[in-house]
Amino acid sequence: MRKYTLLFLLMPALSFAQSDTLFIRKIYDEALVNGHSYRNLRSLCKDIGARLTGSAEAEMAIRWGEALLRSYSLDNVQLQEFKAPHWERGNTESGWISTEKGRLHQLRLLALGGSVGTEGLLEGDVIEVMGIDEMQALPPGTVKGKVVFFNRGFDQSYIRTFGAYGACGDQRRSGALEAGKLGAKAVIIRSLAQNHDHFPHTGGMHYEDGQPRIPAAALSTNDADTLALWLQSTKVKLSMELDCRELPDVMTHNVMAEIVGQDPKSVITFGGHLDSWDVGEGAHDDGAGIAHSIEAIRLLKALGYKPRYTLRCVLFMNEENGNNGGQSYAKWTKARGERQVAAIESDRGGFLPEGFDVEGTDEQVKWVKDLAKVLYDFRLSRFEKGGSGVDISPLKDEFPGILMLGMDINSQEYFDHHHTHHDVFEQVNKRELELGSAAMASMIYLIDRYLGEGAAD
Amino acid sequence: MRKYTLLFLLMPALSFAQSDTLFIRKIYDEALVNGHSYRNLRSLCKDIGARLTGSAEAEMAIRWGEALLRSYSLDNVQLQEFKAPHWERGNTESGWISTEKGRLHQLRLLALGGSVGTEGLLEGDVIEVMGIDEMQALPPGTVKGKVVFFNRGFDQSYIRTFGAYGACGDQRRSGALEAGKLGAKAVIIRSLAQNHDHFPHTGGMHYEDGQPRIPAAALSTNDADTLALWLQSTKVKLSMELDCRELPDVMTHNVMAEIVGQDPKSVITFGGHLDSWDVGEGAHDDGAGIAHSIEAIRLLKALGYKPRYTLRCVLFMNEENGNNGGQSYAKWTKARGERQVAAIESDRGGFLPEGFDVEGTDEQVKWVKDLAKVLYDFRLSRFEKGGSGVDISPLKDEFPGILMLGMDINSQEYFDHHHTHHDVFEQVNKRELELGSAAMASMIYLIDRYLGEGAAD
Repeated sequence: MRKYTLLFLLMPALSFAQSDTLFIRKIYDEALVNGHSYRNLRSLCKDIGARLTGSAEAEMAIRWGEALLRSYSLDNVQLQEFKAPHWERGNTESGWISTEKGRLHQLRLLALGGSVGTEGLLEGDVIEVMGIDEMQALPPGTVKGKVVFFNRGFDQSYIRTFGAYGACGDQRRSGALEAGKLGAKAVIIRSLAQNHDHFPHTGGMHYEDGQPRIPAAALSTNDADTLALWLQSTKVKLSMELDCRELPDVMTHNVMAEIVGQDPKSVITFGGHLDSWDVGEGAHDDGAGIAHSIEAIRLLKALGYKPRYTLRCVLFMNEENGNNGGQSYAKWTKARGERQVAAIESDRGGFLPEGFDVEGTDEQVKWVKDLAKVLYDFRLSRFEKGGSGVDISPLKDEFPGILMLGMDINSQEYFDHHHTHHDVFEQVNKRELELGSAAMASMIYLIDRYLGEGAAD
Repeated sequence: MRKYTLLFLLMPALSFAQSDTLFIRKIYDEALVNGHSYRNLRSLCKDIGARLTGSAEAEMAIRWGEALLRSYSLDNVQLQEFKAPHWERGNTESGWISTEKGRLHQLRLLALGGSVGTEGLLEGDVIEVMGIDEMQALPPGTVKGKVVFFNRGFDQSYIRTFGAYGACGDQRRSGALEAGKLGAKAVIIRSLAQNHDHFPHTGGMHYEDGQPRIPAAALSTNDADTLALWLQSTKVKLSMELDCRELPDVMTHNVMAEIVGQDPKSVITFGGHLDSWDVGEGAHDDGAGIAHSIEAIRLLKALGYKPRYTLRCVLFMNEENGNNGGQSYAKWTKARGERQVAAIESDRGGFLPEGFDVEGTDEQVKWVKDLAKVLYDFRLSRFEKGGSGVDISPLKDEFPGILMLGMDINSQEYFDHHHTHHDVFEQVNKRELELGSAAMASMIYLIDRYLGEGAAD
């Protein structure tokens, strides 16, 4: 800090860019030297743990977020209520594969979130496909009564791993729906995972009214390779029991806190999602985004920043299995007569922040690129057109032209942990997490300061 | 790959930039889909392990590197001989602190590389200083007969952790020399570490002829905090035994392989260092740089690249305690009448590559920045003036004007592992390592293709 104070004294007439650099340097100093992100994430992961919507832990996380935000003396700490699905994994999740010659191999399975159970032991011959299109192109009746095994894995040649994830995701989301239409008995999905290991990865899937609802589970990439190898030479039968189930919808809440701006009804929303899947601790997905968002508002408050717009931190509930939190928040803020000017989400883990993706027009991308030049010295270098975040995405419809950002984070390791038992606190590096919080606070600051003075408004 | 082939067919008249992008895309495809970096690093770490110059393991690593390079059918695989120091840790490394009231605490110590032993049990009162300057400003005689405890830690506000390391490093390198001049009995150094844990970090130090040689050891950051706390309220005695020792110099080797260019006597040198400290497995420091360098030449060979300059991969020995490998290589290539046009080093770990530092003139920095624009799409974004690498640095004196680069790698976690028992293979992520190899191969390709056509030549 001292070196910058000296610089300040020597230069009486600072340009805007220099004062921005000085303020952002203060954000980074506070985050790196006195940051709360890591301790807050530890508490969320270890005092609470996994927290799927509707669970006791999810409700605990809401109370946790509310109490923590109140401890920072922020404005308008409040809960916003909405209705959401409630699904439970149950106690039984087992399966194995076997051949006519008596070979047998236990599978590590995780039911996909939202799947129906098997109602006892389910057995069927396995048919492997590399995707929904391939399955639909098979002769009629081919998959009827069978267990469809979706085995398209990650394309390693993607440099950003979210591309590889996106290219496989339809198998998990819609595989059961489409296989059910063709009369299949169940589906098993190669985990949407970057590497080869023994951990299955769960995740969301959906059915449609009027269509068959068949059970769906993920198997580890290693098990998928074993199964594929067996299928090259022999018929394979799968045996599986899942007792997961959908329960009645629950009432739950988003958690919010603000620093009220000079123009109080114009809002910059930033957040992550407080819910997680029901395995591991939801450390990278999305405890990190929660830690980033809470710390961003704490940093700006601690530094005495007086915003033009109202800065609102939102801890969204129910991103993983419904996004009802994001949808209800967009309607709620609209109904209050607020104007949402920008929204930022962190939902790509607690690894090294590299910049922000801009979901918007070419003009908005250019405006952010110009604005963000000052962040290059803080090692934020990537500002490109891209996605923002699931929770904030409903704001686009309610507030056309809103500036939408998603934090761009080193993705190389993310899909080793995503939606598994080992998405735990220990997988997060303290400095990388604190840097993410500083990045979010800095971007909020820049937008608050300059939006309306350039192309984006 | 398929999508790029299609693109190629649709565009008969490609510009240079497009053909560069296509070739670099092939480098990345090969590295990410069929890469050898991770398996080679595993072999170096697990089949050999730690490999300090002069040890049997260091010699094993030389044979390993030679055999591996030969297996890739490269040109002129050879060893280059030189003399280097040989230091051994010995078997005893123990210490504790105690007070007059009988409090006692065991320390986890690691002798600094090059330290003399204690010749039995050494005991002395501890005096804490925050640096060499502070020690030298004490009244004459203050440290005489005492154990000097250098306790200046990392400044967390640095965004790149190498800055924090550099700001503490004099304590480790010169603390014993300067304390010895003032009559101290021994020194203990707070580990040059980013975080708070129980692992001491070793590293190099030096004496001077004609000055006292006193023992020097690192203690863990947690132990340093405990000791500092005790010293606030009481006198503390340190007891320590080290049987490390210097042995006679040894003859050892750098390992080299080439793809000979059209202009065979003009050389682009790239490498890392094959030796490591004698704890852990030297995975990040610098097994990763070795894996990067070997893979870079394999990638270019596998893709059939025909270089203008001779591309020479050098596995340097003795970086950690002497840099005799780097020095002798610079003299060796000069004596052969070669012209070194560029040199690239990877010695900052196997984490995410972010770009390259340029050690050179402003014109060279600008030339690299312009050249590297094509790498932005491969998520390499940082091209700034900075350091290159210890091993290649002697080339600067022999070949004035040579273009010097050091790979810029995410440094946030590096000093959690550096020079410790847990710098092991398991701490390296496969994709991040393979991306580093692709980055090095791509930069070699661009320099080979364009050097001489711009400002850098």
